[in-house]
Amino acid sequence: MPQQRSEETRANILDAAVRRFAMTGYDAASVDDICADAGVSKGAFYHHFPTKQAVFLALLDGWLKTIDTGLDGFRAPTIPETFVKMTQLLPVIFAAADERMPMFLEFWTQASRDETVWDATIAPYRHYRDHFAKLVEDGIAEGTLKEDIDPQAAAQVILSLAVGLFLQGVLDPQGADWQKVGEESMKILMNGLAK
Amino acid sequence: MPQQRSEETRANILDAAVRRFAMTGYDAASVDDICADAGVSKGAFYHHFPTKQAVFLALLDGWLKTIDTGLDGFRAPTIPETFVKMTQLLPVIFAAADERMPMFLEFWTQASRDETVWDATIAPYRHYRDHFAKLVEDGIAEGTLKEDIDPQAAAQVILSLAVGLFLQGVLDPQGADWQKVGEESMKILMNGLAK
Repeated sequence: MPQQRSEETRANILDAAVRRFAMTGYDAASVDDICADAGVSKGAFYHHFPTKQAVFLALLDGWLKTIDTGLDGFRAPTIPETFVKMTQLLPVIFAAADERMPMFLEFWTQASRDETVWDATIAPYRHYRDHFAKLVEDGIAEGTLKEDIDPQAAAQVILSLAVGLFLQGVLDPQGADWQKVGEESMKILMNGLAK
Repeated sequence: MPQQRSEETRANILDAAVRRFAMTGYDAASVDDICADAGVSKGAFYHHFPTKQAVFLALLDGWLKTIDTGLDGFRAPTIPETFVKMTQLLPVIFAAADERMPMFLEFWTQASRDETVWDATIAPYRHYRDHFAKLVEDGIAEGTLKEDIDPQAAAQVILSLAVGLFLQGVLDPQGADWQKVGEESMKILMNGLAK
């Protein structure tokens, strides 16, 4: 089953890359090292990924898909309750981000000097903004959120709060019970948006 | 006036370090380079700063003091208005952060592997949380904010929002009119907190 073996090779490369990036940093991790750890040839590597950067972007993409799946699972009877419930996802996000954070920071450092990578890096949260805006529209339609709310503006506040909680949770994990803080924060915010 | 010359030397070292860190990154900038740019001897350098890290922390400290002074200047008739007015500071913060961001990211990358530096890096926003909590208490006392609000929890939401706006503004400066977004966001949040 060559298709299956190819998928396995790809997964092995990604696993090896995560470990290497976490261990030595993104910059110091070479394609040679990743290939050796994954037990694949350089030919096989380049069959799947044109560059080391492509590996990183694939990791980022996979991680964001996990969050997406998580978000879809959080539906409560009303939209305000749905948003509050979503904060239960915070510990999962923190746990996933924790070991990868040094790698992300290092990558962003480089991305800040490279426009193409930058665009790929910021695309996800435009995606979340649209996702939240859609939910706010649903909330207005179901009559739980104020009619005069601009869904894009409301989505932006929710996203800003989420980004802020994310950064604090990652930078200062012991600083607070971030899930509780997230839940309380979302409730206050929903207070300002609810009818 | 040796006192004055000493202050000048210190300022020259800090200026040279900012330029070097922005140009080559924190890691690649050597004390030798900084001394050469600043036109000071290594003896003079080490008289002022025990390490290159100490230079970075002094830069961070100076930058945060600028924000503090800015925050003190934003007083409006009521506390909710004061918080909304504070968002006028966002463009100033973004401008200051923009050129230093690659340096900060790089430093955080290293700090994430060094507990002492980590503590120094996260101390500032505990400071802001306390500052905001004090303002919320003032708002409850003046009767504009709800009495059943926990000032620490409210301060944490405000801070999370500020951190989120900061990160987005720095990572995606063209993504929105961040000052307007900040103002609208703070108004929605104050809606949830106001009597």
